Amino acid sequence: MRMLSSSSAELAPEFGVQAGRWEQYVNLGAMPFGAMWCVVPPGGRTNTDCHPERELVVVVQGGGEVLASGGSQSAQAGCAVLMDSGEEHVLVNQSADDPLVVLSLYWLPGDAADEA
Amino acid sequence: MRMLSSSSAELAPEFGVQAGRWEQYVNLGAMPFGAMWCVVPPGGRTNTDCHPERELVVVVQGGGEVLASGGSQSAQAGCAVLMDSGEEHVLVNQSADDPLVVLSLYWLPGDAADEA
Repeated sequence: MRMLSSSSAELAPEFGVQAGRWEQYVNLGAMPFGAMWCVVPPGGRTNTDCHPERELVVVVQGGGEVLASGGSQSAQAGCAVLMDSGEEHVLVNQSADDPLVVLSLYWLPGDAADEA
Repeated sequence: MRMLSSSSAELAPEFGVQAGRWEQYVNLGAMPFGAMWCVVPPGGRTNTDCHPERELVVVVQGGGEVLASGGSQSAQAGCAVLMDSGEEHVLVNQSADDPLVVLSLYWLPGDAADEA
């Protein structure tokens, strides 16, 4: 087994917050998705993001609000939010004290094994 | 966007705990992995599991211990544990009070798009 922890990951500024791309982990083997940790500080928010990949945002610590498709949804640890290809989205951390930590998984739709 | 929450998912006994397979969500579209919520009650543990799929266990609430490869690792919310194909594993929730909730993602290695 291989332990991958957001708390010890190398983070860098990206999307207006701190992101820890999984490319930092060597020898993970082939994966059917890209992945990164994303840490939104208290009171922070990501830039608006939009890309052809579908994205699954898994909330692993804290909570916040997801803005997308002209609406908003509250998302707490224990939730996952699935974004469609080309859907603009923003993560907002309204907490004054606690970071919002998510694991973002993304993949291009239509790949061969995408019918699994 | 589509909100998928472990707290409102339909769960059923599986692996000695409560599992909520994502097949319950209609019209998710093709995904490059299978997924399920897994809720380990306080003091509980999963049966030993072993399968050809690689598996990423994302801890989204609580914490516990993962037994695999003859060793053990503590895993708290904000961690992910990657299991190799054919690696036996058990999730243990040592808390007397809090459930351990994980999102398990799994895929067969070697699929065409697995080189993403």
